[in-house]
Amino acid sequence: MLKKVRLFTPGPTPLLPSAQLAMAAADIHHRTPEFRAIYQRVLSQLKEFIGTKNDVILLASSGTGAMEAAVSNLTSPGDRVLVLSAGKFGERWVSLAKAFGCEVDVVSVPYGQTFSIEEVRARNTPDVRVIFVQSTETSTGARHCIENIAALSRDSGALLVVDAITGLGTTHFDVDGWGIDVIIGGSQKAVMIPPGLAYCAVSDRAWQRMETSRSPRYYFDLRKERKSAAKGESAYTPAVALIAALGAALDYIAATSGGNIAQGRDALIHNAEVTAEMTRAALTAMGLKLFAPTAPASAVTAVLAPDGMDSGAIVKGFKEQFAGVLSNGQGEMKGQIFRVAHLGFFDYLDTIAMIGGLEQVLSQLRGRDLLGVGLKVAQQVYARRRGTSLAQLLEADQRCSCGRPAADCAATMATVSA
Amino acid sequence: MLKKVRLFTPGPTPLLPSAQLAMAAADIHHRTPEFRAIYQRVLSQLKEFIGTKNDVILLASSGTGAMEAAVSNLTSPGDRVLVLSAGKFGERWVSLAKAFGCEVDVVSVPYGQTFSIEEVRARNTPDVRVIFVQSTETSTGARHCIENIAALSRDSGALLVVDAITGLGTTHFDVDGWGIDVIIGGSQKAVMIPPGLAYCAVSDRAWQRMETSRSPRYYFDLRKERKSAAKGESAYTPAVALIAALGAALDYIAATSGGNIAQGRDALIHNAEVTAEMTRAALTAMGLKLFAPTAPASAVTAVLAPDGMDSGAIVKGFKEQFAGVLSNGQGEMKGQIFRVAHLGFFDYLDTIAMIGGLEQVLSQLRGRDLLGVGLKVAQQVYARRRGTSLAQLLEADQRCSCGRPAADCAATMATVSA
Repeated sequence: MLKKVRLFTPGPTPLLPSAQLAMAAADIHHRTPEFRAIYQRVLSQLKEFIGTKNDVILLASSGTGAMEAAVSNLTSPGDRVLVLSAGKFGERWVSLAKAFGCEVDVVSVPYGQTFSIEEVRARNTPDVRVIFVQSTETSTGARHCIENIAALSRDSGALLVVDAITGLGTTHFDVDGWGIDVIIGGSQKAVMIPPGLAYCAVSDRAWQRMETSRSPRYYFDLRKERKSAAKGESAYTPAVALIAALGAALDYIAATSGGNIAQGRDALIHNAEVTAEMTRAALTAMGLKLFAPTAPASAVTAVLAPDGMDSGAIVKGFKEQFAGVLSNGQGEMKGQIFRVAHLGFFDYLDTIAMIGGLEQVLSQLRGRDLLGVGLKVAQQVYARRRGTSLAQLLEADQRCSCGRPAADCAATMATVSA
Repeated sequence: MLKKVRLFTPGPTPLLPSAQLAMAAADIHHRTPEFRAIYQRVLSQLKEFIGTKNDVILLASSGTGAMEAAVSNLTSPGDRVLVLSAGKFGERWVSLAKAFGCEVDVVSVPYGQTFSIEEVRARNTPDVRVIFVQSTETSTGARHCIENIAALSRDSGALLVVDAITGLGTTHFDVDGWGIDVIIGGSQKAVMIPPGLAYCAVSDRAWQRMETSRSPRYYFDLRKERKSAAKGESAYTPAVALIAALGAALDYIAATSGGNIAQGRDALIHNAEVTAEMTRAALTAMGLKLFAPTAPASAVTAVLAPDGMDSGAIVKGFKEQFAGVLSNGQGEMKGQIFRVAHLGFFDYLDTIAMIGGLEQVLSQLRGRDLLGVGLKVAQQVYARRRGTSLAQLLEADQRCSCGRPAADCAATMATVSA
C-alpha cells in the first residue's frame, strides 16, 4: 500500500504549507530595505508569540545555539549556577555551563519526573547567579512549574533562563509577569518550519548582566545582535528563507479570521493540549504506561514500551508499515520509551491516524487485538473537549506552565515561602 | 483546534509532493529539445501506466475535452452511437454525441446500478458505429464490466470508447487484449496532480475511423496531436508545468524501489482496493447504506445519507469541523448521497483519519454514539489484507474492470453469446 511520509516527532514537526511556499520564494538579499522590513516584522511577531515586551533575538542556529548564548552572555568563569535537570536537555545545561567554566550545582530528578519546589528553594543559595531549566523536558515528556521557579529567582536575584524550545506554543507562560529573564525557542517546533533558527526573549535584568559578564562569545554575542536588530538587521548573514517561512507561520498562528487558521497562540496551545490528551487516553486504554504521568507535557507524550519489548521495535514497525516517524527514547531511555509529538501543525485527523497506525503495530508486536481500543477513547476526549468555549480558553490562559491553574501554583509557593 | 485542508474528493485528489515540486520548478520553453525530451518520456510513461501499445495523446484540457475529442474524431453527423448511461457522466456522453449530431441510442440504468450485458448485446445493433461508456461512474460509485462490453464491440465492429477518468489507476484493464479503442484519463485523478490535462490511448481501428469521420474539430484534432507527438511536441501550447508534474508522479507510481513509492501501477490499484474496502466496511458498520452495493468501484465510494438527513449536512459538518472535503451527490443525487475517494494518493492513515472524522460528524448529526464503530472494522480489513502476497497481487491482475476474476466474466460472455 501507499505510505506517506509523516513526522510525529517533537522536532522537526510537520511543515506549514504557506511557510514552505514563503521559504521557496525567498530569493532576496539580506542587506536591503525589503529584507529589513521582513526581519523587523518577524521580530515583532515573535514578541507577540512569546507574549513579552522584552527584546527578541533571532539566531541562525539550532536551539542549542541559543542555549549557549544564554550561558556565554550571562555568566563569567567561576560563576555559581544552578541547573534543574530532569532529562537529556537538563544535562545539556550542565555540559554548557561547565564548558564555559561555571561552578555548576544540579538539582537532579529521575527521568520522567519534575522538581520539588522545596528542594529548588533550598538549593537556590544567594551565590547562585543563574538558574537554568527546561519548561518541558523533550526527552521525557515531563513539564515543570516555571511560575514557582521564577518566583524563587526573583526573590534571590538569580537570573532565570528557560529552555522553552518545545514549551513555546504548547504551554502557558507569563514571561514578563513571572520575570523569565531568557526564554528560548526553536524553529522546528510549534512554529511549524524546518530547523535552523533559534530565538530568545531577553529581560532588562539579563541585558544588564551582560555588561559585566566575561565569558567569551562572538557569533552568539546577544548585545551585538540587539544593536543590529534595532536597524532591522542581523549581525551575521541571516537564514533568509527560514525567516520568510517563520513570518508566514506566525501569520498563520496569529490570524483570527480568514480560513483554516490557528486563531491565535492560545488556540495553538489548546490544540496541543487536546491532541496530547487524546493520545494519553488512547495509549493508556491500550494498556501502555505514560513515562511522565504526574506532569505530562502537551508538547510530547513519552510512553513506556510494554515489558520485555524494545521501544525501537514500535518505532521501526510504524516507519516500515506507514512511513510515519515516531521518536525513540534519548540517551539512557533509548529502547525503553517512544515519543509522540503534539507541538505545532497536528490536528484531530492526524492524531486519529497516528493512533490507528500504532494500534496495528502494537497488535502485531504483542499478538493481541488492540484495534479500536485507543481510537474510541481518543474520539471521546475530542467529543468532550469540542464544547470548550472561548471563556474556558481564556481561563486556561491563567494556567501555569506546569498545567495547573495559576492560583494553585501561587498557593504552593506561598506555603514554600512561609 | 487546527484544521488541515484535506481532499477526500474523486478529483481533484491529494497532490504528490514530488509532483508539486516538479510543477513549481518547470520554468522551461515548450519548443526546445529539453521539453521535447520530457514530453516524449511522459507519453511513454503514460503508455505503461495505461498498459497499452497504442499511441497516447495528451491534451491541455479537462477530461471532458478528451471525451469531446473521442466524439468529434470518431463520428460523423447522423452516425448511430450507443451510450451506456448509469449516471451523470453517462449523460455527458449523450449530450456530447447529440452536440455533434449523432443519432444517440441509450442503454440507461438507474443511478447506482450497472448494465445487464444481455441488454447491451441486444441494443448493439449492426448500425451502431461507436459505444460510449464509463468504466467507473464517478457520480454513483458503480463500475461496469468493460471486458464483456469490449467483447460485444469487437464482434459487432462498433468502436468502444471508455471514459476511465476515475478508472485508470483504480481498476484493471487489458486495453489491447480486450480491444478498447479509446480509453480516457485525467490528471487530477489517480495520477495525483492538479486538473488541466486529459490523456487517451487510441487504437488502430480508431485512427482508421478518423480518416473518414466528418465531425468538425480543430483544437481536439487527435491526428494533428499524433503527428506533433511523433516529433516530441504538442500541436498547441502544452501545459508545461502539469506535464512536468505528471512525469514526476508517473516516476513515483512506476518505481519499484527507493523509498516510499507506489511500487507500480498494480500496487496503486491494490491500494485503492484496500482503502475502498476499509471505507465500505466502516460505513456499513456505522449503519449507512452503500449506493452501489452490487458493483462498487475502488475509485470512489458513494453512500446514502441516513433517512431524513440531507447528505449536504455531512459534507458541511466534515468541512467545518475538520477542513476535510467530501463530495456531495451530483445532479439528481445531490442531498441524497455523499462520496469519498480512494483514487491516487491516499494511504491507510488517511483512511483511518477520514473515518474517525466521519464518526464524529455522524454521531453529532444522528445523536447516536458511533465513535469507534467503523474504525475497528476498517482496521480489521487492513489487518486481513496486509498479508496479501505478490502472487495474490498478480492474480488480482487477472481481474476484470468490474472487479470479478477475468474467467468469470469470460464465462458470462460465453453464456450471453450462446
